[in-house]
Amino acid sequence: MPKPLSPGRLEAFSDGVIAVIITIMVLELEVPARGISNLAAIREELPLLLVYLLSFVQIGIYWVNHHYLTDDLEQVTHGILWSNLALLFSLSLVPWATNWVALRGITPFSIALYSVVCALAAVTWLILSTIICRSTRQPLAGSPVKQVASAALYLGAIPIAHLSPIAALGMIAIVAILWLLPPRKVLERTRNIHPPQPPHSDPR
Amino acid sequence: MPKPLSPGRLEAFSDGVIAVIITIMVLELEVPARGISNLAAIREELPLLLVYLLSFVQIGIYWVNHHYLTDDLEQVTHGILWSNLALLFSLSLVPWATNWVALRGITPFSIALYSVVCALAAVTWLILSTIICRSTRQPLAGSPVKQVASAALYLGAIPIAHLSPIAALGMIAIVAILWLLPPRKVLERTRNIHPPQPPHSDPR
Amino acid sequence: MPKPLSPGRLEAFSDGVIAVIITIMVLELEVPARGISNLAAIREELPLLLVYLLSFVQIGIYWVNHHYLTDDLEQVTHGILWSNLALLFSLSLVPWATNWVALRGITPFSIALYSVVCALAAVTWLILSTIICRSTRQPLAGSPVKQVASAALYLGAIPIAHLSPIAALGMIAIVAILWLLPPRKVLERTRNIHPPQPPHSDPR
Amino acid sequence: MPKPLSPGRLEAFSDGVIAVIITIMVLELEVPARGISNLAAIREELPLLLVYLLSFVQIGIYWVNHHYLTDDLEQVTHGILWSNLALLFSLSLVPWATNWVALRGITPFSIALYSVVCALAAVTWLILSTIICRSTRQPLAGSPVKQVASAALYLGAIPIAHLSPIAALGMIAIVAILWLLPPRKVLERTRNIHPPQPPHSDPR
Repeated sequence: MPKPLSPGRLEAFSDGVIAVIITIMVLELEVPARGISNLAAIREELPLLLVYLLSFVQIGIYWVNHHYLTDDLEQVTHGILWSNLALLFSLSLVPWATNWVALRGITPFSIALYSVVCALAAVTWLILSTIICRSTRQPLAGSPVKQVASAALYLGAIPIAHLSPIAALGMIAIVAILWLLPPRKVLERTRNIHPPQPPHSDPR
Repeated sequence: MPKPLSPGRLEAFSDGVIAVIITIMVLELEVPARGISNLAAIREELPLLLVYLLSFVQIGIYWVNHHYLTDDLEQVTHGILWSNLALLFSLSLVPWATNWVALRGITPFSIALYSVVCALAAVTWLILSTIICRSTRQPLAGSPVKQVASAALYLGAIPIAHLSPIAALGMIAIVAILWLLPPRKVLERTRNIHPPQPPHSDPR
Repeated sequence: MPKPLSPGRLEAFSDGVIAVIITIMVLELEVPARGISNLAAIREELPLLLVYLLSFVQIGIYWVNHHYLTDDLEQVTHGILWSNLALLFSLSLVPWATNWVALRGITPFSIALYSVVCALAAVTWLILSTIICRSTRQPLAGSPVKQVASAALYLGAIPIAHLSPIAALGMIAIVAILWLLPPRKVLERTRNIHPPQPPHSDPR
Repeated sequence: MPKPLSPGRLEAFSDGVIAVIITIMVLELEVPARGISNLAAIREELPLLLVYLLSFVQIGIYWVNHHYLTDDLEQVTHGILWSNLALLFSLSLVPWATNWVALRGITPFSIALYSVVCALAAVTWLILSTIICRSTRQPLAGSPVKQVASAALYLGAIPIAHLSPIAALGMIAIVAILWLLPPRKVLERTRNIHPPQPPHSDPR
């Protein structure tokens, strides 16, 4: 008797990959050599720590929203499987791009490269999101405006980086802040479920 | 009261190992030192990124098919346990072989070594696959032709690499493309389950 | 039909991240070069091993208590999600701080930095703990005294490190020992559940 | 209403840590620099690969047997929690010891150190195993003879390594082979459950 492929394993695998990605970045944070003074060392590390924080928040956002996206999933099609792997591939480049910025400095080229990786992740997310929503016959999780705006900001950051790397980093940070707010679908859920809470409801 | 060993834990462990393998490869992608120009740096990285992509896709394929393979599993025998670990061991050599290619270049020797690791993974997969199918008394997941053809292509790539490393890489890429298509068993399942969907069926 | 976000996935993701954090630290334990004698090599490694052990125990403590904290959780709110990610971010800095101590020695500055990271983790824990307990309408897991005392000891270790790094490390070790004892809530649970064990109880 | 701590999360966390340990070892397998010839490079790598294989098999054995050990577990006590963490700590030193052997060669000192780490793992396993079996009121999983013999062989390998490192490695390999055979308890289970298979039994 054939059974449908389980979304649970897709979620667990994605969580595993994202958990590894989000934590290996710290391995790249190199400790300055013994020769350098403590003050110089911490001054060298601080921008790295901030870029690391930005990457951590971005990966965190993808995890949170992946969570919302696959929540209603009932069957994993071949298209979902592979567009999910494409997203994970893009995300796995984030530690590498973060490392590039950390080792070669906040230059126009480094930030353009970092923006390319962010844009790639946003585009693969849009593809996965569209395929899943078509399969569950539900509207896009999160507003489609926000999704397209994010991809546009990331893509825009690529040329802007050549004029001002700091401005480009600002655009990427804006996307992060945009997504720190919960998607509307979730807000409604919480509103429906929590405060009124029908007395006969079966938790879990 | 003895209970059978759970296939769930085998799957979860395999997923964990594969998730780590697929993401640690990026750690090997070294960032060029500060001295090199940006153009030279990206030209140096590009072939690495392509080899990394090929390895990522291959590991992804193993994960997807492992998924199909263990789906019908009801009991984990000692043979399944250890042939599964043999597969995971082979797969864990992929980041090392990828790194070898990345650091020592696309030479006849590097690609031959990469092909050896790919062939090793294909052979351990064939063993695991055979043991599982004998235990579930089901035909091989995916066509046996495809499985044997893959192992043959990988083995063939070893001598070919000495004549032309690019041709050998092409053979390995052909295997990847071959497996990107869903196995027939899965197609049938999807066909059986999704479109007609008997009204009395209990999803999940 | 909207369903509440599952605490299970929050736990699984946190476990994944903590599992990676607790094991990647060992990657930082560099093996002394071939030139050095074995005795000199082991003498160089021993303090590193002890700092690694201290970090391992601390991360282990967070995992154990995270376990108790999320046990009664029924719904994951946006606040819980993000304060949990803040905790994971702080914990992911522990391998980096451990590495800093290992590579630059047990100096006042290194230990002050290590204490800052420990204090950051304690503060984010306190925030997560408070948010969760408010959401489950239960008293804080573990005594609030212990939680505040830990944060105070960590914060106190920062200036103390400038006078005596060993004393500061001692203070951090005291916190670890404090938490190795099980929280009272758990003790009561075990007492209630195990010895009397009502015959009609449904295990699992 | 207090609920008992779930063995499921202990298993999942242990699996996660073991999955990371078993795969990060490959990261330590350094690729020889570009200057060395291919033949010299592979000759340099081969002993490393064999030590890596030995470590992989050992970690695999711990995973398999951890699986059998926690199978009957109904409640996770504080003692189990911390002796499990002690085992995971010991296991996390295996990649470091493997790396030590790989980088400093198969010398009396390296193999003695490797044996110390193996012995530490065996002792913590014995402690965890004893605590769990006392809590489930079942006999030790696997024969106690095999467990004590393993610890003895590991401890014996420490002084033997000073006379002949190869002999000490052989003793460690003997332990691995000893454990590759399934524990008797499992054999009986499989025998009871599979071939006769009472028609009324409810699998799963």
